[in-house]
Amino acid sequence: MPRLIDSDSRRTAIAEATWRLIQREGFDAVSVRNVAKEAGLSTGSLRHVFTTQAELVAFGMSTLGERFVERLATLEPATTPIDTAVGILEQLLPLDDERHREAEVWLAFIAGARVDPALRALSERTDEALRDVVRAALAPLEPADPDLALEEVYALVDGLALHAALHPRRPTAEAMRIVLRGHLERHGPYGASEG
Amino acid sequence: MPRLIDSDSRRTAIAEATWRLIQREGFDAVSVRNVAKEAGLSTGSLRHVFTTQAELVAFGMSTLGERFVERLATLEPATTPIDTAVGILEQLLPLDDERHREAEVWLAFIAGARVDPALRALSERTDEALRDVVRAALAPLEPADPDLALEEVYALVDGLALHAALHPRRPTAEAMRIVLRGHLERHGPYGASEG
Repeated sequence: MPRLIDSDSRRTAIAEATWRLIQREGFDAVSVRNVAKEAGLSTGSLRHVFTTQAELVAFGMSTLGERFVERLATLEPATTPIDTAVGILEQLLPLDDERHREAEVWLAFIAGARVDPALRALSERTDEALRDVVRAALAPLEPADPDLALEEVYALVDGLALHAALHPRRPTAEAMRIVLRGHLERHGPYGASEG
Repeated sequence: MPRLIDSDSRRTAIAEATWRLIQREGFDAVSVRNVAKEAGLSTGSLRHVFTTQAELVAFGMSTLGERFVERLATLEPATTPIDTAVGILEQLLPLDDERHREAEVWLAFIAGARVDPALRALSERTDEALRDVVRAALAPLEPADPDLALEEVYALVDGLALHAALHPRRPTAEAMRIVLRGHLERHGPYGASEG
């Protein structure tokens, strides 16, 4: 992992260069040389901090995670449990350019990490963290079966994000919003129609 | 595209070798040399038929598609619209080893094809074909809004498949079955609760 990066602006430049490479050319394009070039830094200076592809990808993903957490922390307070859940879960959907880029980077990361031992553990931790977010978003809806509700809503959100990352105009942002809210609303207290 | 493969068993050996490579090492491991080695064939003989990675991946994916279509064609007739829809949609979920392998190969394919111009069109055609399957599965349920129902159920199924491909024991096959059936059942005539 990076030992020291000497300024916030350099951190940002390196993370964003990593994302752009992943978005444009895929996971395997990430290397110290390519990221340095993309960020306008010397390869030598980057190599002081990062020595492997896995370190760079891990840094890029953790920076992506920080942005997501910052967005969650600055959400406007909502007045109903459904609005609260929608507000949180929409941060996982590619509804604007920033979240669309995140979805593309995330897709390349999970596909690459599946077969890369150096990144497998990070992928599992990311999955755990996202499950915790979805679980927390659903808790105020008092699902009859929290585990099944989690699997269902987490799958729905990631499926929408996946499709939008692959096919930018389909589903549309409007369709994703309607599908997510409609899904939560039909459940009333989530899962109660089954219990 | 392949001009001629001289026997069914060779076709199968080549397709399965391609899948194993993708499963084990990812999309970028597919090459004429690697597939020949994995299938126990000479590189020269394979090179008579395939010259690029894209041709091999396209052949592997179309063979995967054929298996899926064969499974659809041999489904037991169901007696209710929900059972019919569940029977079709379960063919997209990694509920057994064969479908689990397909989900892993599919994930590597879609992530790789997103940034590979030679495979982008095939990925779009695959997506269209899958949308048609989901649309046909939902039609007997008479969704109030067929387009939104398609986005929702297609996202749910692909999200479940994605999670199971990444984390083999979570969601479990049982959870995937319950989530899919519960989702369709709660809708009654799909979407009617909103109309």
